[in-house]
Amino acid sequence: MDTYKDILTRAINANKKREFYSQYPEHHKAYPEPWFEIGKEAHASNLNGYFKGLEFGKNVDWIGEEVSPVNLKPLGIKYPAHDSENLIRNALSVKTELKNVPIETRAQVLIDALERIKIRFFEMAFATIHTTGQSFMMAFQASGPHASDRALEAIATAYQELTRYNSDVSWEKPMGKSSITLKKEFKPIPKGVALAIGCSTFPVWNSVPAIFANIMCGNPVIAKPHPSAILPIAIVVSEIQNALNAARISRKVVQLAIDTSNNPITKKLAENANIKVIDYTGGNEFGNYIESLKGKTIFTEKSAINSVILDSVNELPAVIDNLAFAAVLYSGQMCTSPQNIFISEKGVKTKERVVGYSEVIEMFLQSVKQIIENPKIGPGTLASIQNENCFSRVKGVYHSGAKVLLEPSKGERGRTCTPLIVELKNSNKELITTEHFGPIVKIIKTVSLDDSLSIAKNNAEQNGAITCLVHCTDPNLKTKIKSEMEEVFTPVSFNLTGYFWVNQHAAFSDFHVTGGNPAGNASFTDANFVNQRFVWVGHREMV
Amino acid sequence: MDTYKDILTRAINANKKREFYSQYPEHHKAYPEPWFEIGKEAHASNLNGYFKGLEFGKNVDWIGEEVSPVNLKPLGIKYPAHDSENLIRNALSVKTELKNVPIETRAQVLIDALERIKIRFFEMAFATIHTTGQSFMMAFQASGPHASDRALEAIATAYQELTRYNSDVSWEKPMGKSSITLKKEFKPIPKGVALAIGCSTFPVWNSVPAIFANIMCGNPVIAKPHPSAILPIAIVVSEIQNALNAARISRKVVQLAIDTSNNPITKKLAENANIKVIDYTGGNEFGNYIESLKGKTIFTEKSAINSVILDSVNELPAVIDNLAFAAVLYSGQMCTSPQNIFISEKGVKTKERVVGYSEVIEMFLQSVKQIIENPKIGPGTLASIQNENCFSRVKGVYHSGAKVLLEPSKGERGRTCTPLIVELKNSNKELITTEHFGPIVKIIKTVSLDDSLSIAKNNAEQNGAITCLVHCTDPNLKTKIKSEMEEVFTPVSFNLTGYFWVNQHAAFSDFHVTGGNPAGNASFTDANFVNQRFVWVGHREMV
Repeated sequence: MDTYKDILTRAINANKKREFYSQYPEHHKAYPEPWFEIGKEAHASNLNGYFKGLEFGKNVDWIGEEVSPVNLKPLGIKYPAHDSENLIRNALSVKTELKNVPIETRAQVLIDALERIKIRFFEMAFATIHTTGQSFMMAFQASGPHASDRALEAIATAYQELTRYNSDVSWEKPMGKSSITLKKEFKPIPKGVALAIGCSTFPVWNSVPAIFANIMCGNPVIAKPHPSAILPIAIVVSEIQNALNAARISRKVVQLAIDTSNNPITKKLAENANIKVIDYTGGNEFGNYIESLKGKTIFTEKSAINSVILDSVNELPAVIDNLAFAAVLYSGQMCTSPQNIFISEKGVKTKERVVGYSEVIEMFLQSVKQIIENPKIGPGTLASIQNENCFSRVKGVYHSGAKVLLEPSKGERGRTCTPLIVELKNSNKELITTEHFGPIVKIIKTVSLDDSLSIAKNNAEQNGAITCLVHCTDPNLKTKIKSEMEEVFTPVSFNLTGYFWVNQHAAFSDFHVTGGNPAGNASFTDANFVNQRFVWVGHREMV
Repeated sequence: MDTYKDILTRAINANKKREFYSQYPEHHKAYPEPWFEIGKEAHASNLNGYFKGLEFGKNVDWIGEEVSPVNLKPLGIKYPAHDSENLIRNALSVKTELKNVPIETRAQVLIDALERIKIRFFEMAFATIHTTGQSFMMAFQASGPHASDRALEAIATAYQELTRYNSDVSWEKPMGKSSITLKKEFKPIPKGVALAIGCSTFPVWNSVPAIFANIMCGNPVIAKPHPSAILPIAIVVSEIQNALNAARISRKVVQLAIDTSNNPITKKLAENANIKVIDYTGGNEFGNYIESLKGKTIFTEKSAINSVILDSVNELPAVIDNLAFAAVLYSGQMCTSPQNIFISEKGVKTKERVVGYSEVIEMFLQSVKQIIENPKIGPGTLASIQNENCFSRVKGVYHSGAKVLLEPSKGERGRTCTPLIVELKNSNKELITTEHFGPIVKIIKTVSLDDSLSIAKNNAEQNGAITCLVHCTDPNLKTKIKSEMEEVFTPVSFNLTGYFWVNQHAAFSDFHVTGGNPAGNASFTDANFVNQRFVWVGHREMV
């Protein structure tokens, strides 16, 4: 049986090494077989009722408006809602208590929380399916093991940083024949109450790094999910509360803030002077507003326009299949989804010949169709559309005048839509430089690799990019491409084929968002992600 | 003979331990005896001429307006001045070159620079005396060994952070019977051109951490000194350039930006979109402007109102003597100078008795007088006033209606002024909450320790504090005071007597400024101080 100390030590080592590491296996078959049914039943019993297991005290109301994108039925779950002042008062009331919890204990409690969450991975998968529209596989992995690995990565990074200096020091300064001795005490002081604002597509994965990092650093957290995707993170918060409670620490260290789309409370919370740290995942407009707030430490992940550049390949079909899958997976609703695919009018070089531009496009369209028209693979890969707004974005691009290469079609069951694929030219500036989150793929016909690279680079710098996929077999060109994209702080993935897609970012290895371009100012999970949540204070006393 | 690797390794260890450590002994007698005369002569030969040893190319002008605060004579030194566009163009031209210099080499070159600077410590001492007005002892220590230790601390912290992850990684993900392998490359990418804006009182000490951290992180630096205190940092910059040149790296990696008080160029530089990182030391007004600039990483040290609280002591005379020295040292022109001294009307507890408020004041005034009237100690302790504006601040407080306890007096030789000491009450809000940089000490009569603590705490939170000195012998009260001041991110020094003063902040041990209150957002030299200067980018390639 692993102790929390073993888990922590391995995670710290993994952080440095950045090789493959996972505490929570991603495959659902790695977990006891009955867990699937247990999780399914637990989910069913959550529906149409009052969510159990959240500390609430005197909540003002029970609210909830989630609707399953899969069957369009309301989940019917009501959550205990507090007004923002009450949430902040609660958080403030446990500030000193949490500050006084030793770092070791904080790590222990949070790893205990992860072990409790693990038992509910399957329940969380169903919760995620019916709030985000994801397939079972993605919902299980993203909200379960992948999120928990990322949370553990945050715990480990924070542990390392919080224990980085000797805490009790005897400082003896030689002064010729005598000396002066000061006793010094170095303490990482938490910044204050934190707010973690979640998104609707990855309500757990994108929120747990902030929640766990904050508690490690001593900041009580208010987790504010998107009103359409509460259930998965509600389970997480309740299990953290259970772990806190088991360690005799107040459950108020982490609270869930519930609101509705008609009566949002996020701004009220964010603007409150007692909120000192904010983590935000979501669109640009609200993200820019959050970043403009004064006197707070802000971590954001906003819009990203991820580019793909096809230049030269070994096996074109393998490349096209990999790209088609990456582009249609979860209907483009990942922050890492590729959106702008750049192909030079000169075509794509292969070992045997140069494949013409039109032929490449045709292969891509065929590959996409093979996925979406396959009754076994298609629905699970496309999954459902989380938000109705996606349809208006599809319509907007469809009617923009861009050449339509693949017609989108709305599905009959649930909220689904096959991807719209359009062809753009360099002159379609606005479409190229705008994120169209959802099932929209843009193929951009350029005059050369340099042209493709220049547009992609400029776009990353101006509008943000989280990742970039490049197919290129020339070592000198690869070096050049890396160097260019580094200038706009965008990592490049080269030559992906087979069962690994550009959308994937693994805990303990891939930093998620670099923090260097408009896609966001924070990075999961570098040292900045935790160090900015506390302040070193060093007291001294003469001996 | 130490190799740079030995020096670096010891500095990294010292950073973690935070015990006493110094690479450059602070006592001038630790250096070869002839260095004093050599330095003095070198300084004399700098006067009334064109400053030698700075890379300049086609500089637009030779300018300089420094005047010695000690003898009020112009130094007559002209420095090569470039317009801001030219400086930025130069910096941009070496961006890629510096980015490609390996981390090891950067550390080696910068430690070589420190070793070259060491040889000019005495020359820098005279340069510092005749620009800042400091005494020889302070000028030697602050600009020489103390600054170099702080620079080395920055090199070591940056080295640790830049090498924190494995750079070339084979990431192999098991997939049942097969596996997927990605080659990954993790690179710390420099943020871009940096600007280091210096202050007039500690032109070297406050600037070298930023300059050295930036070069370590790969950011070309433009050092912008205060026009009245150029010479000391000009020497530093020229020696860094020499070290770069010896390693066949362009001197343009660090440049000196010269201007005059009538034609300042700092805003032009700061607002240029190519400036990505700014470090600033100086007053609040300009500091707030710097902090308001968008799209840049900003590190500031601004105003601070440092409090002293006298509650209970073992030996009152030793306490009073220590405090008097701290308060008058360099005429209060240190960012760590104590300014607000809180004494309860109930007096100060000693082992034998409670010493009444008036008696404590009297002792303090006597102790101050003993220092300033002592012909051997006084002038060197008070040193000179760097800036004429100090006199108007003295006048302002003098005529504010506050009760004057000690009359200030302007000296006859050079620009000097003995301290003005006033008594305030809680009702004198504006005087209590305003920094009056210079020879001004405020004694604040409160009703209790709680009252003192509450005003000091509130002041730190609202107006900033870098340090706080408390005399208290009760362990429970000490714990409470620490806890209260931690909430406003202000370190407390307890019970200092003898040859250690609250003004002192030692490299490798005391973090300078916590970054948690309005005194500044940066801290010498925690991990944030370097990590925010670069961005991690991780490339991947399928194997």
